[in-house]
Amino acid sequence: MGEVRGFFYPRTASGRSSLIPRPPWYYSGDLLTVEYRTDPARVAELLPAPLTLAEDDPGAVALIWADWQSCSSSREELLDPVRSQYKEAFVVVRCAFEGRTYSRCVHIWVDKDFAIARGIHQGYPKKLGSMWQTRPHPFSQAAPRLAPGAVFGATLAAGDRRLAEAVLHLTGESENGGFVNGHPMAHHRVLPGIGRGDADAHAELIESGASQVDAGQAWRGDVELRLFDSPTEELARLEVHEIIGGFYRQVGVVWDGGRSLARLTGSDREA
Amino acid sequence: MGEVRGFFYPRTASGRSSLIPRPPWYYSGDLLTVEYRTDPARVAELLPAPLTLAEDDPGAVALIWADWQSCSSSREELLDPVRSQYKEAFVVVRCAFEGRTYSRCVHIWVDKDFAIARGIHQGYPKKLGSMWQTRPHPFSQAAPRLAPGAVFGATLAAGDRRLAEAVLHLTGESENGGFVNGHPMAHHRVLPGIGRGDADAHAELIESGASQVDAGQAWRGDVELRLFDSPTEELARLEVHEIIGGFYRQVGVVWDGGRSLARLTGSDREA
Amino acid sequence: MGEVRGFFYPRTASGRSSLIPRPPWYYSGDLLTVEYRTDPARVAELLPAPLTLAEDDPGAVALIWADWQSCSSSREELLDPVRSQYKEAFVVVRCAFEGRTYSRCVHIWVDKDFAIARGIHQGYPKKLGSMWQTRPHPFSQAAPRLAPGAVFGATLAAGDRRLAEAVLHLTGESENGGFVNGHPMAHHRVLPGIGRGDADAHAELIESGASQVDAGQAWRGDVELRLFDSPTEELARLEVHEIIGGFYRQVGVVWDGGRSLARLTGSDREA
Amino acid sequence: MGEVRGFFYPRTASGRSSLIPRPPWYYSGDLLTVEYRTDPARVAELLPAPLTLAEDDPGAVALIWADWQSCSSSREELLDPVRSQYKEAFVVVRCAFEGRTYSRCVHIWVDKDFAIARGIHQGYPKKLGSMWQTRPHPFSQAAPRLAPGAVFGATLAAGDRRLAEAVLHLTGESENGGFVNGHPMAHHRVLPGIGRGDADAHAELIESGASQVDAGQAWRGDVELRLFDSPTEELARLEVHEIIGGFYRQVGVVWDGGRSLARLTGSDREA
Repeated sequence: MGEVRGFFYPRTASGRSSLIPRPPWYYSGDLLTVEYRTDPARVAELLPAPLTLAEDDPGAVALIWADWQSCSSSREELLDPVRSQYKEAFVVVRCAFEGRTYSRCVHIWVDKDFAIARGIHQGYPKKLGSMWQTRPHPFSQAAPRLAPGAVFGATLAAGDRRLAEAVLHLTGESENGGFVNGHPMAHHRVLPGIGRGDADAHAELIESGASQVDAGQAWRGDVELRLFDSPTEELARLEVHEIIGGFYRQVGVVWDGGRSLARLTGSDREA
Repeated sequence: MGEVRGFFYPRTASGRSSLIPRPPWYYSGDLLTVEYRTDPARVAELLPAPLTLAEDDPGAVALIWADWQSCSSSREELLDPVRSQYKEAFVVVRCAFEGRTYSRCVHIWVDKDFAIARGIHQGYPKKLGSMWQTRPHPFSQAAPRLAPGAVFGATLAAGDRRLAEAVLHLTGESENGGFVNGHPMAHHRVLPGIGRGDADAHAELIESGASQVDAGQAWRGDVELRLFDSPTEELARLEVHEIIGGFYRQVGVVWDGGRSLARLTGSDREA
Repeated sequence: MGEVRGFFYPRTASGRSSLIPRPPWYYSGDLLTVEYRTDPARVAELLPAPLTLAEDDPGAVALIWADWQSCSSSREELLDPVRSQYKEAFVVVRCAFEGRTYSRCVHIWVDKDFAIARGIHQGYPKKLGSMWQTRPHPFSQAAPRLAPGAVFGATLAAGDRRLAEAVLHLTGESENGGFVNGHPMAHHRVLPGIGRGDADAHAELIESGASQVDAGQAWRGDVELRLFDSPTEELARLEVHEIIGGFYRQVGVVWDGGRSLARLTGSDREA
Repeated sequence: MGEVRGFFYPRTASGRSSLIPRPPWYYSGDLLTVEYRTDPARVAELLPAPLTLAEDDPGAVALIWADWQSCSSSREELLDPVRSQYKEAFVVVRCAFEGRTYSRCVHIWVDKDFAIARGIHQGYPKKLGSMWQTRPHPFSQAAPRLAPGAVFGATLAAGDRRLAEAVLHLTGESENGGFVNGHPMAHHRVLPGIGRGDADAHAELIESGASQVDAGQAWRGDVELRLFDSPTEELARLEVHEIIGGFYRQVGVVWDGGRSLARLTGSDREA
């Protein structure tokens, strides 16, 4: 019988059908970040053991929009850009594990299947959504230029409901693009057991981060942010108590795998 | 820290955000099935060890379009049907394991994220696609009625490329809706290891099937089928050597878990 | 030079590219109708001269969801159903012209380009939207059957914002599927002048209606309806003062043109 | 009764619902242009009287992909970018009218309803499609930079079928971004009569062009182009006989109306 190949499913004799290629994965894109503080108890309830709240500023949240082009080492996806371009919006908090601070994505929406599959691998809990963010352009007839005074809008919807709206007014240069998403990611990868009522068949805490990052000048700005409730989403439960700030930055990133931090018993889902 | 809940990700304190609810899962829908024979070697190359070719008619393939409405036990998704309706097209072959014949889905495309997540759980290798199938209706101004003479079309596309087109002309009643998809499913559930070059972190062969099926009168018909190649898909590699027949049937199904057949070493992907 | 052919644009030598074929147009589908009363002044402000409010029940509004399959006389679209199936939600009020009562569609959203083009021709002011309505099915695992006790949901969104949600609980048979959409349609067809500040280049009041209708048993039910505001939509301005009732009906329809009622001066848009 | 407002439908008391605002319209975006020569007879058959073939290079065709952000004078769409961003691919030929050379769009696909509505106004025969073009980015992990050696892909699909694929390899600077789309546009605006078999109710030849254009450095390159047939599209009928060249350019544009060249009898569609 067959020796099937392919990094992800469906595995075939050639490996050509795999929904995603083997890493490294390459990204070029624009990040619009809004940072704010919520009740740390709302962050804590998203941190299953063995994770704990970060010691410093434990209620800090980053809501990040990203407009990406991505590819494998072959770069062939760049010439068929339906396989290369995607948008996402995601929510990052911080946490601690064995004395180290990690970032952790607790909600994320994307608009392509290959992005969902990467999330399965990396532990990002990806759903489909509709994300939009204003693009900068050299000609300002219908676009901001990346400079003080520029105004960007960003929206997120899923299930035909709007979940978030942000407006960012750039005020000046920044030393960074925010701090909440600045640590390695600590993510769970879980697969429920196939039998009725089974514990998880696989539950693992992994660490992951970019293996290379290039970043342009970061810009800081003032932010308006509105979150909306939905029967199936809990973004709005991370209520906005205080805006920290907004950021815009263009980046190039390479991701090339992570490492396993802990195998878990996987009974959490029945808790 | 939190006791997170939820059958699938993202797990939260309430469990409300989970992309899919705990089974059982309920389905009502219409199945348009095309069965044909291909070179058994092309089937064999999609069957990783320990699976082997089915003894009887090993080159039989079913290409099935399904137009579904689905829900959890709460039935709440039926009142917000963006969360309930989805379409899919999938390719089923047969195989053998420990002396028993199984069906096996080797390619599948769906149009909703909750359907992808169910596939992750059940071992269906789901990608996003665009599927269309003619609907029967009591008024024939722009629809066939379910009766001899009715004609149905079905198409599949992914990545902005058309992958399959079928036309089914109903000729009469049938005792069943095809035989290729008539066994329990034998599916792999795999999760690549998070480290560069790692073997699979999880690799499992599972068995799964409906816990309850209601089915209406099955209809048989003549079929035209065309498959098209794509850089990222291998459906067309299952070349059409001989058409077996076409079928149309309305069904109601309940799915409530499966069972693990074998834990695998998971090194296949490097083969 | 060319003798270009085609009912609609783009016109070519063969006519094959036309976005829509020449009528008659054929439809089979399911209608979920919610009727309610709003302030008649809100209806009146949507009726440009020479239209006036209907004498009887002038504040009556119908919000209708339709799940259609449609085709031309060739029926070829039925075999390539991406060209045949579409969904819509639309708002109908009544009005009077020269002593006769007409229905009039004041807002409508569809999900295919050919449906938009038909609207340009028929005077329906179509935008793109995302519409979902529960489907009945013979197997009730995940569907209502068409009978008392059945419950249907319907939603409408546009621009990534939800605009309307309805739930219909069937209580029994009805003699009709509602009265607000029961008259010939009186629609404006307008094309702004191409020059800056020009009056309309074309402005016409037309009458249109089905040339043939088959309809199944109509069902009546209780309704919950919620409308939501949006910066670009005014559906919610037709506030719900009193629910009249809800209806479900399957229909087959043929449309084969209308007639011009009046050429207008077309200066209304500058009013 | 009402004094309805709004540049386009639906017209309401406030004008807020209009699918498109009153011009001027503002655009910032990137143009990827492929120019080639086809049989001039294939161009001629798309030019209804009173248009004739351009004298010089009458078989020249431009296939252009555009990735746009657009807005009205209020710029409010830029903060809700689902209303601002859209993509398109369009085919331009040249023609002559009363001794002057015009450009003319003969096929075009877009991905937003507001873009379709602008086309109705400007005489672009817009359908919905799926268009993708590689984006340049300052970080080259997954993007070309705008410089010699950069490679861009562009694809077009409609009706779940791929219609065109191009690859552009930049070789150096260019004085312009192509010549085929360099003239004012000569477009027909037609509205079929509402009665069965009626002649066009409105048929007009209009001239239109940008009222202001800013353009960055144009880049020239080598091109591979493939066109694919479809039952509903005739792009592939404009066969590629000789590639002229490819171009990439970023632009900012303002459009503020055109002028009517001729009222036509409108009987062409029955020819």
